[in-house]
Amino acid sequence: MEGDPPLRLRVFDLNCWAIRYLSKRRQERVRLIGDMLRREDFDLVLLQEVWSEQDYSDLKKKLSGCYPSSHYFRSGVIGSGLCVFSKFPILDTLLYQYSLNGYPYMLQHGDWFCGKSVGLPGSRAGVGMGVTAPLPSLSLQLHAEYCREKDTYLPHRLVQAWELAQFIQHTSKAADVVLLGGDLNMHPEDVGIRLLRGWTGLRDAFAEATRFEGCKNGCTLVPDNCFTDKSEMLPFPLGIRIDYILYKATSSFTVKCEELKTTTGTAPGMDIPFSDHEAVMATLHIQRQGQAAGATLGKAEPALADVVIEARMEVSVGRRAAQRQRYSSGRMALLALLLLLLQAAAALGVLAGLGAGQPFPKLSFCLLAFLALGVLVLATGLHLFHTMEVKMLHGTEEQLWMALWALPECR
Amino acid sequence: MEGDPPLRLRVFDLNCWAIRYLSKRRQERVRLIGDMLRREDFDLVLLQEVWSEQDYSDLKKKLSGCYPSSHYFRSGVIGSGLCVFSKFPILDTLLYQYSLNGYPYMLQHGDWFCGKSVGLPGSRAGVGMGVTAPLPSLSLQLHAEYCREKDTYLPHRLVQAWELAQFIQHTSKAADVVLLGGDLNMHPEDVGIRLLRGWTGLRDAFAEATRFEGCKNGCTLVPDNCFTDKSEMLPFPLGIRIDYILYKATSSFTVKCEELKTTTGTAPGMDIPFSDHEAVMATLHIQRQGQAAGATLGKAEPALADVVIEARMEVSVGRRAAQRQRYSSGRMALLALLLLLLQAAAALGVLAGLGAGQPFPKLSFCLLAFLALGVLVLATGLHLFHTMEVKMLHGTEEQLWMALWALPECR
Repeated sequence: MEGDPPLRLRVFDLNCWAIRYLSKRRQERVRLIGDMLRREDFDLVLLQEVWSEQDYSDLKKKLSGCYPSSHYFRSGVIGSGLCVFSKFPILDTLLYQYSLNGYPYMLQHGDWFCGKSVGLPGSRAGVGMGVTAPLPSLSLQLHAEYCREKDTYLPHRLVQAWELAQFIQHTSKAADVVLLGGDLNMHPEDVGIRLLRGWTGLRDAFAEATRFEGCKNGCTLVPDNCFTDKSEMLPFPLGIRIDYILYKATSSFTVKCEELKTTTGTAPGMDIPFSDHEAVMATLHIQRQGQAAGATLGKAEPALADVVIEARMEVSVGRRAAQRQRYSSGRMALLALLLLLLQAAAALGVLAGLGAGQPFPKLSFCLLAFLALGVLVLATGLHLFHTMEVKMLHGTEEQLWMALWALPECR
Repeated sequence: MEGDPPLRLRVFDLNCWAIRYLSKRRQERVRLIGDMLRREDFDLVLLQEVWSEQDYSDLKKKLSGCYPSSHYFRSGVIGSGLCVFSKFPILDTLLYQYSLNGYPYMLQHGDWFCGKSVGLPGSRAGVGMGVTAPLPSLSLQLHAEYCREKDTYLPHRLVQAWELAQFIQHTSKAADVVLLGGDLNMHPEDVGIRLLRGWTGLRDAFAEATRFEGCKNGCTLVPDNCFTDKSEMLPFPLGIRIDYILYKATSSFTVKCEELKTTTGTAPGMDIPFSDHEAVMATLHIQRQGQAAGATLGKAEPALADVVIEARMEVSVGRRAAQRQRYSSGRMALLALLLLLLQAAAALGVLAGLGAGQPFPKLSFCLLAFLALGVLVLATGLHLFHTMEVKMLHGTEEQLWMALWALPECR
């Protein structure tokens, strides 16, 4: 069996930044992306931030010839933005929505409304001699980082990274090869990505690639790109790497990354790039081994325990902040309720004829009552939301604790 | 290996109905449940509706001697209510929250606030000669059915049943034995349970049991129970069966249900039963086979295609209803916005000195503006919610369609 011809799998990953009404020259760029995908003829295309179903339909129409299978993952108010085009038939799909994803009241960040998730299309890729390998490939996007110095979303992103790691571990047990591509919104050395890679055993195509071609250090968000926010890139003159293709081979297969490329500059013959992110393109070399090499258990990284402890500490900091917010929103709701009760008492007093003769300020009274009611509703909503947040952060803390004790080095 | 001594696994499942302030004689019943579990010494205990973490902590304290491993699944505003006690070490856990779970404004039903989910504790059970079998056991609860004649939640429950089926298929590929226990809120012949069983190949312990002892037809919600709502039980004089223990053996194991029991009447020596549901207790007989029997692929039921088509039709009906609600809430929001704009124009007119001399009804004006604002906020919220609902129902329809084409009989 060792003589089976290997499979060369060409994978494409891009955060398309296709937000209706907001992204610059969106339709033009989606058209360019479609043209390029048709020309380049990849095996698997993982796209993020395709927020408009119309854009997906246009792409699907254009690509149906070379990518017969495709899937769009629906979730949240706006959608997940995730879609997949594949040469291999997609047999079934599973969508996992992260339990925490920002705050509904942070309208300007909007992550909450997207229902960020990981989409798992299960397909089978042909690997030599008619043998097929189950190939779950995950497309995903984690919560954005809006300010690296004061990153209030770090605990949420860590919960997502942990849930993603657990999701991969639980769904890939019988898979021969696992592929993950997406905008992780984390720098390579961040605790979340160390946790994800350490716990699952996923390998970074950029670090493993035999050949590399593209932006320096594999960066996917670079100041040269005309769509990136220059002020955000100031601390990173070379750019940052937050889009990844990760992989692992379980059981009796080996995967090697032959080549990794990123896009650079503008699209061929155009004055704009495909997106504000650079695309990542990997050529993987998948081969069946003569004998089962044993499942890659993940957890192979040294000092994984330290990473789990660090992640747990960050989540714990987040939980305490959420507890404070829960407390203050609860107190605000109580105060508003008290004010309403006082007003009700005053109104009853007036109706009962107390203070007769004195003018009753109806207008201000009504205004105050509505204000109190508004505050009560909002504060109660916030209180419920933060209660849920505390629960999820606490749950993740516990799971990380359990994970720590399951590590051989901690037993 | 065929000579390996088999494993006798005793599984307990109960919807505990332990809602703080609402469930009758809650603390007393939780104490009774704890005493019984300690006495009976099961291998695996799956509990639902343990809404209070305090109740879980009390149970945990009491049961730590005989069930060294336990886990409480946190989710939603109130919690998932799910917890697990196990003789075998729980190695890790995964919580999957269903994407749809009722409506936030149906406060009297409250499902939305619970974050209903399926909890997966991964454990390893010893099966003869030091061999261990990965044993994912799922504890879960699906959306309640409040009115069987006009079941508005049926599409949501179907989405949950389908997501559950997909979750089981994706997470159990490498498992030798899969166990599922919970309150499915579905009668045995309902389309949701036929879909779940047909798609996953799970077998119903009640139907397969060699011996049965308990309420007639294995019912778990019976009129004789003093806590059940008698009026709801009128159409079902014998009761209904909505709590299940399901199982399947993948790869090289076989599972047989030796005995199934349900509780009947009151708890021993007391005047009350353990809960408003009856507990289900199964004794399973797990044996390693001499040679791999091949993974049970599920999908073995005849006419599975019909079930998928039926489910898809119901989901489609639900989607159309959600689309109508999305439309009417959107229209309501627009009308409220229009009213606000008109009022703003009127206010500007007054400020500009038009209609001077006429008395301006400040109070009614303010009241109307606040009313319009309130309607605007509420209707927008509803519109967003139903947009999300339509998306999820549409996504499930597509997945069911994909599933249909993957069935051998439809190719």
